[in-house]
Amino acid sequence: MTNQKKKVVIIGGGFGGLEAAKRLARKDVDVTLIDRKNHHTFQPLLYQVATAVLSPGEIASPIRRILDWAKNVEVVLGEAEKIFPESNTVTLKNGGTIGFDYLIVAAGARHSYFGHDEWEASAPGLKTLEDAVEIRRRVLLAFELAERKAILTGETEPLNFVVIGAGPTGVELAGAIAGIARIALKGDFRAIDTGAARVMLIEGGNRVLNTFSEDLSAHAKQDLEELGVEVVLNCFVTDIAPGKVKAGDEWIDTTVAVWATGVSASPLGKFLAEETDDSGRISVEKDLAVPGHPNIFVIGDMARVEEKDGTLVPGVAPAAIQMARVAAMNIANDLKDKPRAEFKYYDKGSMATIGRSKAIVESGKLKMTGFIAWLAWLLVHVLSLIGFRNRLWVVTEWFWAYLTRERSARLITGGSLELDSAMKFLQPDLGKAAPRKADKKGKEILKT
Amino acid sequence: MTNQKKKVVIIGGGFGGLEAAKRLARKDVDVTLIDRKNHHTFQPLLYQVATAVLSPGEIASPIRRILDWAKNVEVVLGEAEKIFPESNTVTLKNGGTIGFDYLIVAAGARHSYFGHDEWEASAPGLKTLEDAVEIRRRVLLAFELAERKAILTGETEPLNFVVIGAGPTGVELAGAIAGIARIALKGDFRAIDTGAARVMLIEGGNRVLNTFSEDLSAHAKQDLEELGVEVVLNCFVTDIAPGKVKAGDEWIDTTVAVWATGVSASPLGKFLAEETDDSGRISVEKDLAVPGHPNIFVIGDMARVEEKDGTLVPGVAPAAIQMARVAAMNIANDLKDKPRAEFKYYDKGSMATIGRSKAIVESGKLKMTGFIAWLAWLLVHVLSLIGFRNRLWVVTEWFWAYLTRERSARLITGGSLELDSAMKFLQPDLGKAAPRKADKKGKEILKT
Repeated sequence: MTNQKKKVVIIGGGFGGLEAAKRLARKDVDVTLIDRKNHHTFQPLLYQVATAVLSPGEIASPIRRILDWAKNVEVVLGEAEKIFPESNTVTLKNGGTIGFDYLIVAAGARHSYFGHDEWEASAPGLKTLEDAVEIRRRVLLAFELAERKAILTGETEPLNFVVIGAGPTGVELAGAIAGIARIALKGDFRAIDTGAARVMLIEGGNRVLNTFSEDLSAHAKQDLEELGVEVVLNCFVTDIAPGKVKAGDEWIDTTVAVWATGVSASPLGKFLAEETDDSGRISVEKDLAVPGHPNIFVIGDMARVEEKDGTLVPGVAPAAIQMARVAAMNIANDLKDKPRAEFKYYDKGSMATIGRSKAIVESGKLKMTGFIAWLAWLLVHVLSLIGFRNRLWVVTEWFWAYLTRERSARLITGGSLELDSAMKFLQPDLGKAAPRKADKKGKEILKT
Repeated sequence: MTNQKKKVVIIGGGFGGLEAAKRLARKDVDVTLIDRKNHHTFQPLLYQVATAVLSPGEIASPIRRILDWAKNVEVVLGEAEKIFPESNTVTLKNGGTIGFDYLIVAAGARHSYFGHDEWEASAPGLKTLEDAVEIRRRVLLAFELAERKAILTGETEPLNFVVIGAGPTGVELAGAIAGIARIALKGDFRAIDTGAARVMLIEGGNRVLNTFSEDLSAHAKQDLEELGVEVVLNCFVTDIAPGKVKAGDEWIDTTVAVWATGVSASPLGKFLAEETDDSGRISVEKDLAVPGHPNIFVIGDMARVEEKDGTLVPGVAPAAIQMARVAAMNIANDLKDKPRAEFKYYDKGSMATIGRSKAIVESGKLKMTGFIAWLAWLLVHVLSLIGFRNRLWVVTEWFWAYLTRERSARLITGGSLELDSAMKFLQPDLGKAAPRKADKKGKEILKT
């Protein structure tokens, strides 16, 4: 029996982990938050980084900056590698062990390729800032390389962007890519018509945004089509290779593919439960503790929680935040010998944006579409951003983008111009192609 | 004899290439601008990206956006590989040939390691946005890893930042890194005192900023020392290895080293002249044409131009811009059968910033230091930025940073957390180190 403060370790600085740290701040515990990144990423706006509206710095904040006022919270940059629930320790990749009295595991999810990890190189997903910058690089590079080819050889390369999965991320990406092609890049290219690019959204189910009611799904589909997106429903992607995507039985030539379907919870779950569900989530008790380990909580995308009607709590930010509050409260309750609280999901509704001035919102019986829904979407997302500075910057960027129809963050950085496997489709015939004016000029001069 | 428009090819979208394209816009020529990047980078502010004040997108603009109004200018993303002055063609890496009537070569310079390219991994230079993001990553990671080590093992790792070369870039970097350590990060860390970090500025010559007059150099040195930078003069770096820098005969343990000395002009010069000078520059005629090839101009950092008094025109943005105007004018003059103009450098003066509220300015007999010089520096750099949007954003960021003393762009992205060779210094004993509270806690629990 010592009077030493209890030690709480939180794995993950996403919505859940950060909320838990805030709730435990200034409480009579020592908190250590571990994250692989030095920054919290506002994932709902990642697609805007991927489509050159926002810069990475505008949707991310250093975790230790967010928590600098919480003097009982320390932040460790590192990757939790293993959890030992019997000895109450966590080990880090690259060495290091941290012991805990309580553990909150909020390590989130990554995209999952259903056992086909080899598809990732050709069709990256969108979960981190690095993912977003890579997708932006590929999308912008596609137009640049098509222009280069047209100038050097006179040949026009058909551009085909394929987004796989019509959940919120897929819908937002497809709408935004169509906006880039049809509006933002218009006028900047000489040899190609960027507006001629195809944007396909492929979905295995029978409608887009299937967590919304059917009429809103139908509305969103129509909005997408007005923006120039080809929506393909009831169609499963069965294979992906460099430069092509197999939809059903048909191979589709693809300039850039993006994977926006399938998530898999952090593999850390396997240290806490014998079994996980198809998405890698583990079942938790009503107080969000792991069965058999009342001092270990699992929250957010890693937790499988059934509501009374049997539906699963969705893997969204509000659910993670609500779970974090219950986990933090239960630790505080333990310290005061009070009984634990049970988690109950309060569904505030959902919203998805489709493109400039288009969105859908559903909350209980309330349904909104079009411009008003879009304003509501803007408002909620700006208010949810962490930090006054980010809010100010993002609002200014959006206002600028809305007025000028420009994309401000059109940088191709990193990687090489030599196209990666994913973009081979554009590349192979560049060297051997027939010359247009440029080469012709060269040859004329050679002859004289 | 045809009436076909003359074709001008410009290699490089830096200050010189861009100015040449603008001057030739709406003239009776077809212009093709080739650059390896899709964006123009405002190099004078790169050090602010490297030190987390500005985001990459704030000092860069897509080249084709800048030139979208110039309908006779097309932009090709690609790397010029070879120039064939006899056949008037340029070939691109990855295939493709472009012929020209006139060529303006403005491919700039990279940092040079005086034959020790193997030093680059341990001491990167600062010429591109990627360089800046890499240096930012290393600087921020150094503090993160020291904090991690202190939390996991209780051991405090001395942090030592070494900037090599006390020209404007080196001085700016050293001052800004000291500002990060002493001001911006204060309060965000629990286990280390960021203010205890050493920042060394090593210079082979006998003063900093040696293009300024001696009294201003002395003033700048004093400013640096007030910011907490150790200035080491008359000291040559003779070797660099992971985690250490050899200054004279002494090896110095180094957490992060940055190379800010020595530039070498683009290797494209070798296709145009038998000989280049020590910095890879080639001598040009008074009209900036390559001797023997009156239709090929070389401008900017690649051109070696002597003034009447024998001094060399410096490799700075104003010189590149002035050369671009002369080269463009001479092409226009040729078309009108007018005689060519000769280049004469107009030196507007120079300025360098040292840190918050500190700078030096020298223009002819005018000398300024301190806050006024700093305001002048801010004004000139904001006005020189390309694009209203960038100006607006940068001013806002600076205002924010000045008020809050925060660094807004504190993102560690890309690379791995597993420290690269350059940072091995911090890493090796992490795994085997003695435990502090964390491990102790783990062991206590194991025993019970």
